[in-house]
Amino acid sequence: MPELGKVYLVGAGPGAADLITVRGARLLAQADVVLYDALVTPDMLDLCPQAKLISVGKRSGQRSMAQTIINEQLLECATKFKLIVRLKGGDPMLFGRADEELRALEGAGVEVEIVPGITTAVAAAAASKQPLTKRGVARSVAFFTSSTAPDHPEHPALPKTDTLVQYMGGREAAATAQRLLAEGRRPELPVVVVENCSRADERILRLTLSDLAHGLEPGHGPVLVMLGEALAKREHQ
Amino acid sequence: MPELGKVYLVGAGPGAADLITVRGARLLAQADVVLYDALVTPDMLDLCPQAKLISVGKRSGQRSMAQTIINEQLLECATKFKLIVRLKGGDPMLFGRADEELRALEGAGVEVEIVPGITTAVAAAAASKQPLTKRGVARSVAFFTSSTAPDHPEHPALPKTDTLVQYMGGREAAATAQRLLAEGRRPELPVVVVENCSRADERILRLTLSDLAHGLEPGHGPVLVMLGEALAKREHQ
Repeated sequence: MPELGKVYLVGAGPGAADLITVRGARLLAQADVVLYDALVTPDMLDLCPQAKLISVGKRSGQRSMAQTIINEQLLECATKFKLIVRLKGGDPMLFGRADEELRALEGAGVEVEIVPGITTAVAAAAASKQPLTKRGVARSVAFFTSSTAPDHPEHPALPKTDTLVQYMGGREAAATAQRLLAEGRRPELPVVVVENCSRADERILRLTLSDLAHGLEPGHGPVLVMLGEALAKREHQ
Repeated sequence: MPELGKVYLVGAGPGAADLITVRGARLLAQADVVLYDALVTPDMLDLCPQAKLISVGKRSGQRSMAQTIINEQLLECATKFKLIVRLKGGDPMLFGRADEELRALEGAGVEVEIVPGITTAVAAAAASKQPLTKRGVARSVAFFTSSTAPDHPEHPALPKTDTLVQYMGGREAAATAQRLLAEGRRPELPVVVVENCSRADERILRLTLSDLAHGLEPGHGPVLVMLGEALAKREHQ
């Protein structure tokens, strides 16, 4: 059996090339091959000019590559290359399907190491200067995805935390707001929406729960929706 | 009025010096002064040999410096220096008291920018190779702190999410486990505890909810407790 390479699952962070970790940037600079997501920005790929690049993300309107095909590509790379980086938008362990890639690689005896990334929620908090927790106001925060994904068609309960952050929330945010209103959250509850977080075309919207219940205008990139009393604008902000 | 410097609230990440972002490392290398937490490791301070260093964290058994004193020090630095880094363990916007520092700085007209950091939950997920979400199993995760802090003496409800992550959970984790058992979560629910995440003395423990209800042995550093079905060990892990 030929010697297998080592695969690093690396979090790219929210988009800006300098919001990857120092460890992640060093691995990119050393990689023989980089398999990257649709969420990874072109700037970030400038960090690995020496590497063979393989896109495993969405292509203009087409669906994502099936996870099984990505797994096969990773395994094939492990037989051909020594240092393989699987670069994933945000953090690999949060909404990143890491479980499926880890099982495939471990099952084939490939060594794997994980390098965390800045998850979009904390980058959006930084961009909007709104903390997700606040002493005496918010001591818990939940990150969740839209509740009507194909693999989970029923509506699970919304998290019961002080602050809520909905990932990929563009289309589903209105439904979330309506459910929170029905649960008795106040209509003036502060909401901050960040589109294309940390990128040149970043857009930050401030609204209320009641505004959000009427829906968001369709945007042109990943949308993160943050809700909670901790998101109230400060006096001199 | 003298010209004021600019303050950067920078997330240091979980501890390892190369888990800071590239942007954070660059700002450290340019800083005139760095005010740092107890959670910031000495290795990280090697990234700013040119800067004046001010510790604002705990000192061998003493209590943390009062937040109002830290705010005053930040304001004083803004009158004396041009580029001020306030380096905080983890991410500044999650359990970091950023609201209080932002209010003080904004109230005095000081420009502030925030650079996100790797929050310990995702670093602990990476270290233990256990994703926090998993298709068909876990689509929501909550981060929360011990429920009996001085500013909030009553027990708020535990978050209702698929995965739970308790920060600074060493002493409080047993109570959390007992409450989850009382709520009907199964005694075999997988639990992963990470102490001193990403540091040389990192320790990873795997146990069950029922084990955790009996308490953790007191450790020697920050403890993060992750609970949920997504944390089950994989076949070839």
